[in-house]
Amino acid sequence: MCEANAYLIDDGEKKLIMEAVDTVEPEGDGIRLISIFGDQKFLKANIHSLSLVDHKIFLKKQDG
Amino acid sequence: MCEANAYLIDDGEKKLIMEAVDTVEPEGDGIRLISIFGDQKFLKANIHSLSLVDHKIFLKKQDG
Repeated sequence: MCEANAYLIDDGEKKLIMEAVDTVEPEGDGIRLISIFGDQKFLKANIHSLSLVDHKIFLKKQDG
Repeated sequence: MCEANAYLIDDGEKKLIMEAVDTVEPEGDGIRLISIFGDQKFLKANIHSLSLVDHKIFLKKQDG
């Protein structure tokens, strides 16, 4: 499997938000994360960057 | 390895831009894609969505 862990960049810190993320898709004014286990989480954030070989997704809070 | 293929969504069509992408990071007014082979590509686009189990990254051109 090729899932990744999602981290939220907040004030320069990287906080683990969800493990084993499969899908990230835009929804309303944010994004929805869905893990390979079917867990879901909605965040007012954007996808900032990816490092897939390290299994990492970085998210950033939307401005304002 | 856990790389993915990057597709650019343009007028509703999905065009394959780069295979075996490892890293996607913001740079200037766009993003830089780097493959596991070290190939690089710069695009004026954002990361739109991810489907990692399917090994897919979707990018979208910036407005304007």
